Amino acid sequence: MANPDKAKRGIPPKEDFNAWYPAIVEIADLVDKRYPIKGMDVWRPYGWKAMRCIDNLTHQEMERTDHEEVRFPLLIPEDLLEKENRLVTLLKRAREEGVDPSELRMDEDEAGFKKEVYWVRNAGENDLDVPMFLRPTSETAMYTMFPLWVRTHADLPLKTYQIVNTFRYETKQTRSFIRVREIHFFEAHTAHVDEECATRQIEEDLEIVSRLMAMMKLPFIMSKRPVWDTFPGAWYTIGIDVIMPNGRTLQVASVHHYRDQWAQAFDLKYADENGKHQYCHQTTYGMSERLLGAVVGLHGDDNGLIFPPLIAPIQVVIMPVAAHKNPLVNETVESVSQILRESGFRIKIDNRDLRPGQKYWDWEIKGVPLRLEIGPRDVENGNAFAARRTGGKEPIPLDDITNQVRIQLDIVENELSNRSSEHLDGCVIRLMNLDTDIQEGHIYEVAFDGTDADAEVLEKTTGLVILGDSITPYDNEQPCIISGKMTTRLQHLARMY
Amino acid sequence: MANPDKAKRGIPPKEDFNAWYPAIVEIADLVDKRYPIKGMDVWRPYGWKAMRCIDNLTHQEMERTDHEEVRFPLLIPEDLLEKENRLVTLLKRAREEGVDPSELRMDEDEAGFKKEVYWVRNAGENDLDVPMFLRPTSETAMYTMFPLWVRTHADLPLKTYQIVNTFRYETKQTRSFIRVREIHFFEAHTAHVDEECATRQIEEDLEIVSRLMAMMKLPFIMSKRPVWDTFPGAWYTIGIDVIMPNGRTLQVASVHHYRDQWAQAFDLKYADENGKHQYCHQTTYGMSERLLGAVVGLHGDDNGLIFPPLIAPIQVVIMPVAAHKNPLVNETVESVSQILRESGFRIKIDNRDLRPGQKYWDWEIKGVPLRLEIGPRDVENGNAFAARRTGGKEPIPLDDITNQVRIQLDIVENELSNRSSEHLDGCVIRLMNLDTDIQEGHIYEVAFDGTDADAEVLEKTTGLVILGDSITPYDNEQPCIISGKMTTRLQHLARMY
Repeated sequence: MANPDKAKRGIPPKEDFNAWYPAIVEIADLVDKRYPIKGMDVWRPYGWKAMRCIDNLTHQEMERTDHEEVRFPLLIPEDLLEKENRLVTLLKRAREEGVDPSELRMDEDEAGFKKEVYWVRNAGENDLDVPMFLRPTSETAMYTMFPLWVRTHADLPLKTYQIVNTFRYETKQTRSFIRVREIHFFEAHTAHVDEECATRQIEEDLEIVSRLMAMMKLPFIMSKRPVWDTFPGAWYTIGIDVIMPNGRTLQVASVHHYRDQWAQAFDLKYADENGKHQYCHQTTYGMSERLLGAVVGLHGDDNGLIFPPLIAPIQVVIMPVAAHKNPLVNETVESVSQILRESGFRIKIDNRDLRPGQKYWDWEIKGVPLRLEIGPRDVENGNAFAARRTGGKEPIPLDDITNQVRIQLDIVENELSNRSSEHLDGCVIRLMNLDTDIQEGHIYEVAFDGTDADAEVLEKTTGLVILGDSITPYDNEQPCIISGKMTTRLQHLARMY
Repeated sequence: MANPDKAKRGIPPKEDFNAWYPAIVEIADLVDKRYPIKGMDVWRPYGWKAMRCIDNLTHQEMERTDHEEVRFPLLIPEDLLEKENRLVTLLKRAREEGVDPSELRMDEDEAGFKKEVYWVRNAGENDLDVPMFLRPTSETAMYTMFPLWVRTHADLPLKTYQIVNTFRYETKQTRSFIRVREIHFFEAHTAHVDEECATRQIEEDLEIVSRLMAMMKLPFIMSKRPVWDTFPGAWYTIGIDVIMPNGRTLQVASVHHYRDQWAQAFDLKYADENGKHQYCHQTTYGMSERLLGAVVGLHGDDNGLIFPPLIAPIQVVIMPVAAHKNPLVNETVESVSQILRESGFRIKIDNRDLRPGQKYWDWEIKGVPLRLEIGPRDVENGNAFAARRTGGKEPIPLDDITNQVRIQLDIVENELSNRSSEHLDGCVIRLMNLDTDIQEGHIYEVAFDGTDADAEVLEKTTGLVILGDSITPYDNEQPCIISGKMTTRLQHLARMY
């Protein structure tokens, strides 16, 4: 049925994802893009609440795994960057020369790489003695302090995290949550006695990511990035990519194993049980507001957002209907909302003086998973009328409202889970040979065990990018798409955001 | 009893407050001051958790009073500042010329005042088209957007807040939490239909502050600041000053009534019920990490911190004693901690392999309000041994542990409340005439209704600063200390931080 109100709100069809996405983030009141700096949106209350719900899940996971929350300064003095620069240059050389980094000595003179950072060189009317930059991420700031905190093996593992604003001077086109210049960022940084303990941390990180993705119902792939896509200073990087509706992948999280490379650069050592000084092995784990971008992009439809219940700013909106006809209506709405609030649900009563249809569309746009209507007849029958954002309506008994609401939200969760799995399964296609026509909207799975030159051929021929080695390889050996050599290495090719 | 372990940790006696305070913030693991930028401390997990507990109380108060949380960009383009500068210059002229600001016209050419801000003029290798600065506070950023959000009276009141990092290039000596360059800051900004509604908001703000101060057991004074201490652009400012142990006052919060002055500068208008466009009336309410500084400074003693239970990162530490002698000890510790956690208490089990004395001192330094010891004999008797950080110990029955712990924490709360009231009462002295010897460690209450020149005399003679008009004036008229004229105006004089 054509809906004039909806049309007026100007939601483009989701099929046209590149028009739908930037429109819906504003129409649903998540952000306001009219702030006069490109790529720096204002978070409106509804968007910020959604982000805080996601952050709360992260906090819970961090507490469960004994990470401690810290807060480092935003500003980093330029001179601290020198250590990092030397490290990165060294690793680059090692890669180019095909040798182990430990065989190279750091050269004090090697110039650092240019960072896309914002510089602070003046304050008030003064020039600062040492220029500072806004953190793009906090390795440098943190690893300057870690050596002051770690003395012996008893201080390890050191597991810290923070959720902060970070900055990147993006020159590409910006997109709310997906490519912004002030980034709401989660970063965990850990230090361990040896490589093996650090590897166990990586495993824990991947478990945490998987749990969070399941809570948010996001379809994802985990890939060990190719060498050329490894984070500077890392031994290896695992990228966590969500598959967006248009089949492009969006890296929402990454995990890095640093071995002792950063520890050497920052002189982070501990005394082992024999009193011998050893370098720590380190890891980091990062996630950003892209998680919200993925949630928006994945679950929404032509009518607006759909929030998975666990991160919905409002889980249930309750609407009195024809309240003037029976005073019990408002009373019931109040008591139901109180019962649900006490059970921990996030509830909103909508008693605005508007036509019901208009209210429906508002909450539809905002993606509230469950709507409860309570009118005179419902009160008489002891029911509320439940409508799920993912489709389906039915009366539910008021005298068991807490359980009933939980059941309804579970149905929404399951529906979103199913859609997510279907999207993943439908998107990923096996690429058997290079003659295949590459289709828009798909991700290709290949058996690939070639050289860097082979990889270049693969990327050029397909016009896609190698995400890297899937962390779940083939059970049985398959012929490599380039060399034909048998391998269990399963890799994905995609268009990336 | 002399305690060698304690001496080793180097806590100076609290009597020497200027030595005690900077030492305890590090010894108790709140912050690390060794980060290489002056006035930018690293928040360690324990300190950050305390701040988050304070923030949570603030969030609760904001939710109770229907404020919505937003998040604005950190960076503000320089050109937005021009509006603010013109406003401030105008108000300054109005004050100097003794006329109502509405009688003056804004002069485009009037130069703005210099801000103590950090400037961002470059990013990567580029010069930015428009220089930007790090927010010292967000009036400019927010009031640029408010006109886009407010159309009619139905959009009012607009009540928003955020908790963010702000920046001030301090040239004075820095002090953890009290005077820092990156400030953890709360700011509420509201817009209303008229002056009266804005005034009601100010009243609500003062009620919120009073509630928060009561939760944190902080002795405070609220004063309407003299004109020369009014926030630039404000009609009036109310400062909330905590009285520190040395009798100096620390402004931890402030509330500003802007009338429609900012609205005129930023063209913030709404259509009233008759469709006529009117300027909004605005208020702001700010608080900072100084709250934590006040808590640390006020409640601590020679042995370390004392946290009021409502903001204690750990409310109860549970210590098994001689656990090797009876396996029931650890079992009981576990079950008690689980029961208490489920009741919402913040619990820590200390089963480190250290002497009990050492553990006591650790938690004493960290200011945990309640310590529970459980040993073989306690298990037999069905008791835990409770020791309060504010003094006093007693066995409490395990079979009623939740209530018993609540009672113990209430005793700590009451004790801190009493100490706070006693400190306030003991500090504040009535100043009857200017010949009085001004004593260190005191705040002076005066009846004062003089001119600016009189105020100068008063400040010069006493060597103190006028905090302003107490918001609770005298019930009966008193003679003004300078002119002898009868007045109910009660003002305070103090040394300020």
